[in-house]
Amino acid sequence: MKQYDIASIGGDGIGPEVTAQAMRILDAAAEQFGFSLKIQDYPLGTDYYLANNEIFPSSIFEECKQQHAIFLGAIGDPRVPVGMIEFGIIAKLRFELDLYINLRPVKLYDARLCPLKDKTPEDIDMLIVRENTEGAYSGMHGFAHKGQPLEVATQTMVYTREGVERAVRYAFELTKTRAERKVTLVDKANAIRAQDIWTRTFAEVAAEYPDVATDHAYVDAACMWMIKNPEWFDVIVTPNLFGDIITDLGASLQGGMGIAASGNIHPGQVSLFEPIHGSAPKHAGKNVASPVAAIMAASMLLDYVGEKEAGAAIETAIVDLVRDGSIRGVSTAMHRTDEVGDMVLERMRSTAG
Amino acid sequence: MKQYDIASIGGDGIGPEVTAQAMRILDAAAEQFGFSLKIQDYPLGTDYYLANNEIFPSSIFEECKQQHAIFLGAIGDPRVPVGMIEFGIIAKLRFELDLYINLRPVKLYDARLCPLKDKTPEDIDMLIVRENTEGAYSGMHGFAHKGQPLEVATQTMVYTREGVERAVRYAFELTKTRAERKVTLVDKANAIRAQDIWTRTFAEVAAEYPDVATDHAYVDAACMWMIKNPEWFDVIVTPNLFGDIITDLGASLQGGMGIAASGNIHPGQVSLFEPIHGSAPKHAGKNVASPVAAIMAASMLLDYVGEKEAGAAIETAIVDLVRDGSIRGVSTAMHRTDEVGDMVLERMRSTAG
Ligand SMILES: CC(C)[C@H](C(=O)O)[C@@H](O)C(=O)O
Ligand SMILES: CC(C)[C@H](C(=O)O)[C@@H](O)C(=O)O
Repeated sequence: MKQYDIASIGGDGIGPEVTAQAMRILDAAAEQFGFSLKIQDYPLGTDYYLANNEIFPSSIFEECKQQHAIFLGAIGDPRVPVGMIEFGIIAKLRFELDLYINLRPVKLYDARLCPLKDKTPEDIDMLIVRENTEGAYSGMHGFAHKGQPLEVATQTMVYTREGVERAVRYAFELTKTRAERKVTLVDKANAIRAQDIWTRTFAEVAAEYPDVATDHAYVDAACMWMIKNPEWFDVIVTPNLFGDIITDLGASLQGGMGIAASGNIHPGQVSLFEPIHGSAPKHAGKNVASPVAAIMAASMLLDYVGEKEAGAAIETAIVDLVRDGSIRGVSTAMHRTDEVGDMVLERMRSTAG
Repeated sequence: MKQYDIASIGGDGIGPEVTAQAMRILDAAAEQFGFSLKIQDYPLGTDYYLANNEIFPSSIFEECKQQHAIFLGAIGDPRVPVGMIEFGIIAKLRFELDLYINLRPVKLYDARLCPLKDKTPEDIDMLIVRENTEGAYSGMHGFAHKGQPLEVATQTMVYTREGVERAVRYAFELTKTRAERKVTLVDKANAIRAQDIWTRTFAEVAAEYPDVATDHAYVDAACMWMIKNPEWFDVIVTPNLFGDIITDLGASLQGGMGIAASGNIHPGQVSLFEPIHGSAPKHAGKNVASPVAAIMAASMLLDYVGEKEAGAAIETAIVDLVRDGSIRGVSTAMHRTDEVGDMVLERMRSTAG
């Protein structure tokens, strides 16, 4: 029996609650599909930091590296400066595990979830590949005359040939597996001239994939198209910052934060899966947060480690529940958190049986 | 009688056609509201460049500087490299006239124009203030090992205290004139740490405006909110690149490129007004392009030079025509270009009479 080692980091706010449901579903999938999971829980997050004055001890980090995958619930707490724990956990994992792909499936499961008029599940089905380790996130910034009238602040976007190429190549490989087989480069090379490296690299890699159709959109136009003609997009590949922006826009189209999940991936190595919603401190501990996005992240995790059938079964159960109206929307407070977990488990069992 | 000197640059593709209608409306407004216009036409654009091997002769540029305002139709033509004419005209004007504000009213005139379910004109009424001269548009970029496997490309975002402060201050002054009196800073200071200069400057300026409510959103979240809760926004102030992105998203919400206009402004100095749509070469010369956005830009121009009543009359005529269904949508090919001009003229006259 195959065994997968999973690190589970519940995090802050509603993170632990939704993570608990995602882990229940993972366990059920393991039983149903005949593999075994060793889930190691790490109580990282703001409470841990406040108690230990350390965000991510290197001993835990070393253990995380040894896993097949890492699950993260949600991070962020008003008791500490904005971004502090996010950077200490999410950014640390992205950079130090070199998780160079941020993969965001944007798929509409039911027209009722979509804020747009006249758009159906056929129109909204795209995969956004965000480069996840360079660009505006390089960390290279500084201030001259800080706090003075002459202050100048700079931040440098950094792109490397290899950094761009591996993201672009990943996108092309992914596109090959799709029915539509079209990949769109979203950039702003007309203004951010350094992104010429994206233009050139994309063209060179494209030449190796004659069966894949290519397209291009500047990021401003891409935002308009995502609203007006989301059906134009199949796979999108884009630099880090634009990926951050358009994946949130994509989440809106599929029904919002309550359903969107993402993978932070280094192919072949330990990778990180998370719902994209925040920690929503005001809903914490009330058993009202929707665990749907966390459960979708669990589905992506299983797909990534190789249990594709199990991952698909989880997704199917969610889609069924959304479509038949059992899960009426994906926002908090429609059902109790654990009740949604029960419903997904029940649906997985009945489909299998 | 007051006289205003206006430079009119039709530009490429559909630019000259829509500009012609906007100029007709300006002339009619002058007659109706008792001021005089001296409109000087400059045939800049790709044809001019191809004939003269020069994009923007300095003699014309010097003349433009002497105007009260500049009107620009549209720029861009597939016969020359992407961005070349845009940069030679729009960017040159923005930087060399120091047009540090890009003002984009996002106003829904009729629910039928909106791609969102359940949103009405009350929900979508915001002013986006985009800083227009620094940030990612500083032009500071470079390549090491260009074209080699070791290539590194960088681009530096540059913010200055004064550059940020004048944009923020403009936004607060504008907010004071609004019913809702709320200004939201949209940035990504949690990742682009240099934008801390925006955080600090915004807080300092806010202290001078105790009657103005303030809010903050990271750009990724702002994109979601614009879709889900556009009614949360009144005035938005944001760095250049994010302004570029969210103003296009805003245009989608109000009905798309066919209606959106913008001002590139240096308060008290010659400023530039343009529809935000492109030159749409395939529609050029067919009298099918909608001049609505160009006419809205003319309305903004009059408002800017001080003819507020005249500017408002143009806007009212457009809104009336959209609401009563005379202009059924704002895309090309619903009406002939000059026919829409006729309709707006007619409506302005009948409202005045
Ligand atoms: C928390 C923040 C730094 C992060 C990002 O910008 O990458 C988040 O928005 C995300 O998309 O995971
Ligand atoms: C043409 C392009 C460089 C320009 C910009 O990015 O500013 C355009 O998108 C705009 O918004 O006016």
